[in-house]
Amino acid sequence: MTIGFEIGACDGTARFGRVITAHGNFATPAFMPVGTTGTVKGMTPEALAKCGAQIVLANTYHLMLRPGAERISRLGGVGKMMAWPGPILTDSGGFQVMSLSKLRELSEEGVNFQSHIDGKRELLTPEKSIEIQRKLDSTITMALDECTAFPLSKTLTEESMGLSMRWAVRSKEAYLARSGYGLFGIVQGGMYPELRAQSVASLVETGFDGYAIGGLAVGEDNELMHEITAYTASRLPVEKPRYLMGVGRPSDLVDAVVSGCDMFDCVLPTRSGRTGQAFTWNGVVNIRNSRHKDDPRPLDETCKCPTCLGYSRAYLYHLVQAKEILGVILMTWHNLYYYQALMAGMRFAIRSGELKSFRSNFTNRQKQGDIKPL
Amino acid sequence: MTIGFEIGACDGTARFGRVITAHGNFATPAFMPVGTTGTVKGMTPEALAKCGAQIVLANTYHLMLRPGAERISRLGGVGKMMAWPGPILTDSGGFQVMSLSKLRELSEEGVNFQSHIDGKRELLTPEKSIEIQRKLDSTITMALDECTAFPLSKTLTEESMGLSMRWAVRSKEAYLARSGYGLFGIVQGGMYPELRAQSVASLVETGFDGYAIGGLAVGEDNELMHEITAYTASRLPVEKPRYLMGVGRPSDLVDAVVSGCDMFDCVLPTRSGRTGQAFTWNGVVNIRNSRHKDDPRPLDETCKCPTCLGYSRAYLYHLVQAKEILGVILMTWHNLYYYQALMAGMRFAIRSGELKSFRSNFTNRQKQGDIKPL
Repeated sequence: MTIGFEIGACDGTARFGRVITAHGNFATPAFMPVGTTGTVKGMTPEALAKCGAQIVLANTYHLMLRPGAERISRLGGVGKMMAWPGPILTDSGGFQVMSLSKLRELSEEGVNFQSHIDGKRELLTPEKSIEIQRKLDSTITMALDECTAFPLSKTLTEESMGLSMRWAVRSKEAYLARSGYGLFGIVQGGMYPELRAQSVASLVETGFDGYAIGGLAVGEDNELMHEITAYTASRLPVEKPRYLMGVGRPSDLVDAVVSGCDMFDCVLPTRSGRTGQAFTWNGVVNIRNSRHKDDPRPLDETCKCPTCLGYSRAYLYHLVQAKEILGVILMTWHNLYYYQALMAGMRFAIRSGELKSFRSNFTNRQKQGDIKPL
Repeated sequence: MTIGFEIGACDGTARFGRVITAHGNFATPAFMPVGTTGTVKGMTPEALAKCGAQIVLANTYHLMLRPGAERISRLGGVGKMMAWPGPILTDSGGFQVMSLSKLRELSEEGVNFQSHIDGKRELLTPEKSIEIQRKLDSTITMALDECTAFPLSKTLTEESMGLSMRWAVRSKEAYLARSGYGLFGIVQGGMYPELRAQSVASLVETGFDGYAIGGLAVGEDNELMHEITAYTASRLPVEKPRYLMGVGRPSDLVDAVVSGCDMFDCVLPTRSGRTGQAFTWNGVVNIRNSRHKDDPRPLDETCKCPTCLGYSRAYLYHLVQAKEILGVILMTWHNLYYYQALMAGMRFAIRSGELKSFRSNFTNRQKQGDIKPL
């Protein structure tokens, strides 16, 4: 009565595996493109699938406000609505309630907030979040938590984590188990390893189908983020998928995979696609730079995405300058393809026991930087 | 040393045919999607081809200013740059110089104008326009003309048409004939049949590979537009393609095909796609109307486009409300597909000698209007 998780190979603490769901399977380590309002900005579902994406994330906060959970339910769920045939993971809505809504008030019960769209007041509780995600027909449901602020004292972090753990228990109780569907709990505890360990113990006691690491990439430095990630991942049950939330840059993904994380999401490839930034095996390319004006070469000569196979930097520069939609489409397409290629590369490296050399090759190429201007 | 034009069947004055070019062939009557700046807004070239488009129009005025004719030439032409493998028709730039640029001054020599992008002064002459279109590697080049204002006295219309005819001669002289490439002249003469006839005679005397009807859809009523179109088309040489510029709505296309026009372009399907308006066999659907909020049905149940095959009105309503790029993509895709399906339907009807019944069925269904709300 849950999702399945099969580990096919390990390389150090890194794992190659497969999550089996009611909406199809996905290979791990997996990157989930973010489909905020029920669409990955600028991409058709066919294009997403061609990038290699096997699971998509959607945001409960956005969807509950517009078009609304009831309406989506009547349309058969968010996957059906957006014509994405594969698994969908939805967040709990908690993170965006705190970051996007107005006049929010946190209590033991939940979060009372005002919609950023129409100003309507709503109460989001663990039970409500679970109910909404069920209406969305989410393959993987996330428990409601409070994403702890940074920096924050140990005492306040402990209080916040405690609330998240009580909410996790309520989420589990409210959740209706179904075959091929799963519920994930979220580890909090800020930058304090001791609190992270307590949070892990509490969640494992409650029992979830997978465990997420939350409260990171919130402003702390990179080294600290990876320390906390590695520490937390090492304490999580081996037999369940581990999801590092909201992370991150390509190098972050490599580091976190090495630490044993299996699932990721981040708006970076899509958002950067809309601002003219491309991720490549040779680092970041800013297509707005006038050095690309006459460059007939693709973003990345080794990339097999439709953008790199079909279009020059000069054309992309022109499209972005002229604010053409196709510029957003092609840049996003490349970035998502690159992220998926990176994950596929890591999956292959883990199976071959060569993740270490993959990582050093990756780092070297990133350091080399972009090709020289013509 | 030109393009070919084969007429396969006639039905009254309507013709079914094929234009043979250096970049591939296209069936007529043909609708050309407008790729203003070297991209049909919101569409990849693959998507365009899947809609059934076989030739694309690009705007010389936009492209000469940005990214510039020299740059496009170095990239191998506009088709190569935008990864469109088929034929490209470019306009002369004249129409948009007059409608978009500032401080324009018309003289016998050409039009002196200020770029709407950077304010730079430029002179567009018939020779310059031909040269730019050669750099763009346009399959079909249009002669520079003055699009006569409306309403305008007969005397002033005659003067304007006379200038266009002298420019047509200069365009022909400047044009370098190449195998599979063609040059079209443009009939002017406003709403005066006598002047239209003079203009046709003058252009035929000069000799072109095809003839366009310009200066229509400029504010005159619909009946007058179709009278002038039919009159002009009837006087044009049978053996050359006839291109009605900038027209129009689906019903306009049907009327003009009946009158013997072979080629069309219009921003309507793409522009309407960005404002939430869909063209269907049952007339126009405004997807912003809240009646669609919960409607699980497609825009048009008889349409085979990816939008209608995959997505509900409710989802399209949501995407357009949320200002999501995918809303623009899907609405544009549907509209372009519908326009191409309409042309394909007319081509089939002409070959079957059934254009009359096609037209009456078309008109009846348009009049029926949209399906009832659920």
